[in-house]
Amino acid sequence: MHLATLALEGLSLIDNGSTTHRGEVFHAVNPASGEVLEPAFYSACADDLDRAAGLAAIAAPTFAATPGTQRAALLRAMADGLTANAEPIVARANLETGLPLPRLQGELVRTTGQLKQFASLLEEGSWVDARIDRALLERKPLPRADLRSMLLALGPVAVFGASNFPLAFSVAGGDTASALAAGCPVIVKAHPAHPGTSELVGRVLHQAVGEAGLPPGVFALLFDAGTAIGSALVQQPAIKAVGFTGSSAGGQALMRLAATRPEPIPCYAEMGSANPLFILPGALRERGAYLAADLQSSFTLGSGQFCTKPGLIFVPQGEAESFLETLRTGVTALGYHGMLTSGIAERYTSVIRQSVSESRAQLFAGEQPPETSTGGPVHALPTVLSVAVADYFKRPELEHEIFGPTILLIHYGEPADLLIAAQQLHGHLTATIHAAPDDLAHACELMHILETRVGRILFNSYPTGVEVSPAMVHGGPFPATSDSRSSSVGTRAILRFARPVCFQDVPSTLLPSELQPENPLGILRLVDSAFTREPA
Amino acid sequence: MHLATLALEGLSLIDNGSTTHRGEVFHAVNPASGEVLEPAFYSACADDLDRAAGLAAIAAPTFAATPGTQRAALLRAMADGLTANAEPIVARANLETGLPLPRLQGELVRTTGQLKQFASLLEEGSWVDARIDRALLERKPLPRADLRSMLLALGPVAVFGASNFPLAFSVAGGDTASALAAGCPVIVKAHPAHPGTSELVGRVLHQAVGEAGLPPGVFALLFDAGTAIGSALVQQPAIKAVGFTGSSAGGQALMRLAATRPEPIPCYAEMGSANPLFILPGALRERGAYLAADLQSSFTLGSGQFCTKPGLIFVPQGEAESFLETLRTGVTALGYHGMLTSGIAERYTSVIRQSVSESRAQLFAGEQPPETSTGGPVHALPTVLSVAVADYFKRPELEHEIFGPTILLIHYGEPADLLIAAQQLHGHLTATIHAAPDDLAHACELMHILETRVGRILFNSYPTGVEVSPAMVHGGPFPATSDSRSSSVGTRAILRFARPVCFQDVPSTLLPSELQPENPLGILRLVDSAFTREPA
Repeated sequence: MHLATLALEGLSLIDNGSTTHRGEVFHAVNPASGEVLEPAFYSACADDLDRAAGLAAIAAPTFAATPGTQRAALLRAMADGLTANAEPIVARANLETGLPLPRLQGELVRTTGQLKQFASLLEEGSWVDARIDRALLERKPLPRADLRSMLLALGPVAVFGASNFPLAFSVAGGDTASALAAGCPVIVKAHPAHPGTSELVGRVLHQAVGEAGLPPGVFALLFDAGTAIGSALVQQPAIKAVGFTGSSAGGQALMRLAATRPEPIPCYAEMGSANPLFILPGALRERGAYLAADLQSSFTLGSGQFCTKPGLIFVPQGEAESFLETLRTGVTALGYHGMLTSGIAERYTSVIRQSVSESRAQLFAGEQPPETSTGGPVHALPTVLSVAVADYFKRPELEHEIFGPTILLIHYGEPADLLIAAQQLHGHLTATIHAAPDDLAHACELMHILETRVGRILFNSYPTGVEVSPAMVHGGPFPATSDSRSSSVGTRAILRFARPVCFQDVPSTLLPSELQPENPLGILRLVDSAFTREPA
Repeated sequence: MHLATLALEGLSLIDNGSTTHRGEVFHAVNPASGEVLEPAFYSACADDLDRAAGLAAIAAPTFAATPGTQRAALLRAMADGLTANAEPIVARANLETGLPLPRLQGELVRTTGQLKQFASLLEEGSWVDARIDRALLERKPLPRADLRSMLLALGPVAVFGASNFPLAFSVAGGDTASALAAGCPVIVKAHPAHPGTSELVGRVLHQAVGEAGLPPGVFALLFDAGTAIGSALVQQPAIKAVGFTGSSAGGQALMRLAATRPEPIPCYAEMGSANPLFILPGALRERGAYLAADLQSSFTLGSGQFCTKPGLIFVPQGEAESFLETLRTGVTALGYHGMLTSGIAERYTSVIRQSVSESRAQLFAGEQPPETSTGGPVHALPTVLSVAVADYFKRPELEHEIFGPTILLIHYGEPADLLIAAQQLHGHLTATIHAAPDDLAHACELMHILETRVGRILFNSYPTGVEVSPAMVHGGPFPATSDSRSSSVGTRAILRFARPVCFQDVPSTLLPSELQPENPLGILRLVDSAFTREPA
């Protein structure tokens, strides 16, 4: 399929084609120009949702029972389809998000890479955590039955696309890839800021499902101008889990819906965080100016619209001149940065203005942004705010994420202040420590506290740029995510959409391949408490 | 320590000793005689709870950072303490529950066995799911950082003791053992039906914590006559997860509390189920009378007060005479069965009476139980109810668990009825299929549906008697449990109380042993996507 030859239809994708329902109309807007983009997109209706959910429910047991290698082939076909259509997808994403082409080309490679990484995981096969306790018929006082368990798919999953990653965290993003890999049908609610990108990607996925001979309910894409379809999707009885990346307000609303259904379901909401970064005195002495330059690159990357943007920067008082001067000079010289949507830009401007006007923090670098005008390009000025640690301790709201190109410098006196600050932290996705060799004792103490507060701890590095790999953890305690036990990036993400099922004395011929005595897939299994690939 | 020499104090255990607070008084009752048992027990107060939670919060990082082998030693010391004090513990449990001594002796062995199984898991060490992606400094376009992740403790856990397993699912039961194994401090809310047993077991655990030189906040035991302390415990900010075994009403109340806290936390509630058992025609022809006898043993075991009691029995119409006759004769000959508490006995009696009087089902064997009298022994008469499958389909309430020695026979015509019935099932802990070789095609179809409805599938067996082992799954979709991704029995239970944390470019000397390059613990790790015990 080459999408370049196809015009966008603006309709939800269900079953083997587009819906015919034409609900409330909405358009994408080019944030770089303010231009309204054609064509019109039509919101799905309740019937569309019911049909998609019904098909997903029908597809669920068949899809769950497919061999992992078949699902791997599906994921690879999806990746190939995206690569073959990279040009129109990236071009449309550029129009809808204003993100530069090289960034979007990189994000597409990341997206296909994710799909292929899950394919490899399925081909290897051991992810299912197969466990076998063989029968002990002679055991006293009671014999032991033959017990075999493994992870199986949870059922249909609702995925919500994110605005800040139109490819890697959207229709074919990590949530979709990991849910499909686990054997769960997926219904995506497209993010309304990039509907054309969503339709193009959705068509590639839809076609791959069809060509694989899988039931059409394995994948569907729904559009909605507002939140009604998304809310109804989470409440649909056929849906068994939710994946979301976005704002705290959106994520917490979905958490409540998922928890208060007649049948509560897991909700995996990644809601971002302020990602504290601690500069210890030795590191500042050793490389203050470099730290300032690298920090500036990290917090302005993607206009600060990354959930891992370092937002709270703890800097020692004294000896900080070179760091502060480099930062002030650098940030002051920056011009307007393009933002994803007018809503994001308005919130950024309003929070910065409010922080300064209410003296929550001082403006250290950059200008107080003017009130946002409507129409025209959507952009924002990078800023650096500043506060003394004593004032930071008094204002818990300063811990909140500000989405956009800004940081809050927190000037501390003693490393002991850092321990207090760390102990007061709520959940964040990451925490970073910059330490020289003579800082290591303090760093160690600090790290042990941070282990209980975040999903990833970095040394002498920057949290933006999340590797997609088996060891990655992109998660963290609430309010960073809804479920600290999970990662939404890397192969661990598949575990969110599976649950263990045990087979007791089930005839071998009826067992899934992963649990059969001869171990036909050659996977690693825990047999009588020992890891082995031998038959059992 | 020998508890035989100690008198019960009736006070919550916090810090290094008993509390002095004496709140609302309650007593245990011997259900076999109706006798009120001394001494008085005193409900904890809000201050007790805050103190216990505060100590747990202080203990949490220290305890999480202990080597697994140190926690293993703690669990073994607890097991040894229980074994050394088996006599007074079992004697008191017998008084408080009416359960026979051999059953309680067996349950104590199971309880110490669980503790030791988790100790072995920690000594082996690979449960932490260590993953290492080594740095790729030459990679283009961007180098890869060194990433190392593993599971770490969630933080303090609230555990609610169950009435039906005063040892194995109570103060030192599976929830406590798995939470401590994961490195989480535990605060147990004792079940008010067996406070003396709880105090004796709690003292053993308390003493083991002290003798191990661990912070006193690692374990606490709270008494309460009602539900106030339990509710407040789940809402305590220091608590990071909940383990519960008990009724649907109780479990769902805790789920709501856990989900609506300012910081929502995982709640693992095992709420029992009706455990459908499907007898296929071939199996019935082959061994009808044996099936009836074995089924009777299973559903009356422990007076039917097991969460895995088979409750819904699907029997083919025709050719069932020998099965039905054996069952009717057997059950009719049974006398009164002792029950755990008057509340359980009253609910049992009332549900059976209501089912029959409202013609939800027919009484097939046993007598309609008389209205419960107060005082005296607490007991119930085994019964068999019966319904045609067409009527079963019309009455969704028939799927609910009836706690006690009763089953519902559901007479079906065609094996296709079973598929419909299976598709309509809500979540259960187990499902059982009895099949002869010529039933296997039907059994296979049925099993694939059941895989989406339960946590454990059994063939030609009975679900009572839950093995404690790595492959066991004691869980299942809601409403059987609050979280189908978990098992509350077997070594998988530890995964409930841990979350992954990633260390990026962290100096080797600061890494947990499990992630250090030389792999000093020799655990199995996923290094660059391959399982190995080699250094990395």
